Amino acid sequence: MTAVSMPAIDNTHGLQLHSWVASANDPASDFPIQNLPYGRFRSAGDPAWRIGVAIGSQVLDLQRAGLLEGDDLHPLMAAGPAAHSALRQQVSLGLRDGSARQAAWSACLLPQDRVEMSLPCRIGDYTDFYTGIHHANTVGRLLRPDNPLLPNYKWVPIGYHGRASSIIVGGTAFHRPVGQTFAPGASMPTVGPSARLDFELELAAYVGAPNALGDAVPIAQAEAHLFGVSLLNDWSARDLQAWEYQPLGPFLAKNFASSVSPWIVTLAALAPFRSPFERPAGDPQPLAYLDGAANRAAGHLDIQLAVWLHTPALREAGLPAQQLMQSNARDAYWTLAQLVAHHTVNGCNLQTGDLLGTGTISGPAPAQGGSLLELSQGGTQPLTLANGETRTFLQDGDTVILRAFCQRGGARRIGLGSCAGTVLAARNPA
Amino acid sequence: MTAVSMPAIDNTHGLQLHSWVASANDPASDFPIQNLPYGRFRSAGDPAWRIGVAIGSQVLDLQRAGLLEGDDLHPLMAAGPAAHSALRQQVSLGLRDGSARQAAWSACLLPQDRVEMSLPCRIGDYTDFYTGIHHANTVGRLLRPDNPLLPNYKWVPIGYHGRASSIIVGGTAFHRPVGQTFAPGASMPTVGPSARLDFELELAAYVGAPNALGDAVPIAQAEAHLFGVSLLNDWSARDLQAWEYQPLGPFLAKNFASSVSPWIVTLAALAPFRSPFERPAGDPQPLAYLDGAANRAAGHLDIQLAVWLHTPALREAGLPAQQLMQSNARDAYWTLAQLVAHHTVNGCNLQTGDLLGTGTISGPAPAQGGSLLELSQGGTQPLTLANGETRTFLQDGDTVILRAFCQRGGARRIGLGSCAGTVLAARNPA
Repeated sequence: MTAVSMPAIDNTHGLQLHSWVASANDPASDFPIQNLPYGRFRSAGDPAWRIGVAIGSQVLDLQRAGLLEGDDLHPLMAAGPAAHSALRQQVSLGLRDGSARQAAWSACLLPQDRVEMSLPCRIGDYTDFYTGIHHANTVGRLLRPDNPLLPNYKWVPIGYHGRASSIIVGGTAFHRPVGQTFAPGASMPTVGPSARLDFELELAAYVGAPNALGDAVPIAQAEAHLFGVSLLNDWSARDLQAWEYQPLGPFLAKNFASSVSPWIVTLAALAPFRSPFERPAGDPQPLAYLDGAANRAAGHLDIQLAVWLHTPALREAGLPAQQLMQSNARDAYWTLAQLVAHHTVNGCNLQTGDLLGTGTISGPAPAQGGSLLELSQGGTQPLTLANGETRTFLQDGDTVILRAFCQRGGARRIGLGSCAGTVLAARNPA
Repeated sequence: MTAVSMPAIDNTHGLQLHSWVASANDPASDFPIQNLPYGRFRSAGDPAWRIGVAIGSQVLDLQRAGLLEGDDLHPLMAAGPAAHSALRQQVSLGLRDGSARQAAWSACLLPQDRVEMSLPCRIGDYTDFYTGIHHANTVGRLLRPDNPLLPNYKWVPIGYHGRASSIIVGGTAFHRPVGQTFAPGASMPTVGPSARLDFELELAAYVGAPNALGDAVPIAQAEAHLFGVSLLNDWSARDLQAWEYQPLGPFLAKNFASSVSPWIVTLAALAPFRSPFERPAGDPQPLAYLDGAANRAAGHLDIQLAVWLHTPALREAGLPAQQLMQSNARDAYWTLAQLVAHHTVNGCNLQTGDLLGTGTISGPAPAQGGSLLELSQGGTQPLTLANGETRTFLQDGDTVILRAFCQRGGARRIGLGSCAGTVLAARNPA
């Protein structure tokens, strides 16, 4: 398997690597020394934001450790894979058992549960794709039973522009959106809180090195323009969406909030979890600008994805959050490299910090829907939870938690952490 | 007529006002002392960007005039109408005939034809609406002859998110985009330069004071969140659009370039050109959150809009650019205040510098189409130019120039200037 755009020498993945940060050696940790994701944090006593690396249950303050100045991740992201690799190497060496830096860096650690996280970086533009073919099929079937997938789907990595300003970091609660809906049989629309509020399970990639306006990025170079990935919950108000989306796509149904997990897991950390890209028999091969040897050999990421739900009643009963579904990033019809090549084929410029969402990643089985719209079959089949309560769509007080990790023989488990969000009551009844 | 969100006392509009900058008193000038639009410029000898105000054929350097520090227009924009009004008053007084500042400020003037303009400010998010009902009707008729307007059109100010990174300032050339198209009768798509490249004539508004995520902006306060307007050309590749836009809307067909005029004309400057908002007989009245007394009295802007085309052959023959059409901002179905109220009804946060496009503003007559798609009836009826050449869509070397101005009895002409863009040959054949 070929790791795309990886440095030639990389000794940061081996199972034998252990850290002097004890919690990083827990096999269940999302953040072992093989991971080293980046985030932006501050601690209670200090109003200044810092860039940090998650290690076990701790955050390494990169400024105090003398590795990175300032509170802006953009310069590192923009510097490209060689710079990313160099810093990764430094952090990995310093956190290893026996490192001479242990004494100095011990003073640069803070417990993750004692820091506040922000968005990891400023996000200029946010593009959301529609690569989850099982999602597209199921949602399409609800609208067009005989013809669920549109003719362009297997040729074009369908995407659209989302709202960057309302992207919030995981852990932030938000208010149920208000908007226009058109009830079946009604004579005119009404305005009120969405009654069909949903989550969408997505993976997202952050752009690292930018491309200039007018310059297409060939697929062979595409991953060199990506810094890393995180989880993304593209909250959706299905009733607003149904009424507004023709002919220009979703707007207020999605731009009230989108949540990202706080840590960016780099493509370097994910190198042991690459998977081949291949088309099912009978499907067309990608057009030339979306095809390439490295993409075929290892374009996909083998990342396990899951959605969990915690409700006020579960909490009150002392019951834990309940898993609703699981899928895998390989269930996407297009790879991240294909998304970059497609996005730029017309010369569109991607800028450092831009976010590319995959769209909802559902698995092939009905129980693997990445949204309640799918899991409840359009709101017709309620899910029953452990305490007997049911859900078609989200209720006030519900907390949705996305989780993701990689686990495959011969490599240390790498986690993306979690992306949580709680629905508050509507605030703006019209 | 009620001027919405105008300061109580405003003496910056009178016809009797004259400037000591002689070119500002030319009745044909877009930039008399009653206008005073903001832009961002630099001069040949100085790499530093500055904020300036256009006056006649000149730019007043606000930093050298001691009025505004720095090269970022955001702080002023964010400060809201009272601050905008205070600075407008200062600039107006200092530029008037007989001002004691004439000697000092004369040294702060630069000829507009000697400065380079940038985008006026950083644009975080760009939203494009679809308020041109004649455009929607004509384009809809090409797709659905019996049912051109979708059922939501007269209830919902239809909008979608555009690409902010590829917004360029008027005067910047760009390359014809490359992308997938699906030819009629073909068995599969092909990749190549767009053969149906088009312009779209739009007005755009810049957000001034932001609203917090979760806070809806009531229509009565909506204009207090806008700083001013400019021209916008939302270049569109119709062949890419036709193949890609289902089901999530336009993407690569529009995100290769969008041009804005360099000067932001403030809402204060446009106060004498307000017009009532009213619905044609038989159309529904707006829902409550889109309705208000001030909007009804004066929600529209009476701005004359036009598109001009200059081709390589016209240039070679020494012929001038040729006017293709004209329309008026009042031809929009929704007002700017309604766009803000709708955009935020779900709690979506607008940030300082965000751009809201109106969508293509066509007039009611067929010759008033704001795009070539309309003027050529879907590419079937070529336009004939003064030199006998024809156009259905744009050819390499074509320059499109949008122009806009207000002229109405009792008030000085106020211009938005122009927004030009030249099509270069495709650069990225796949």
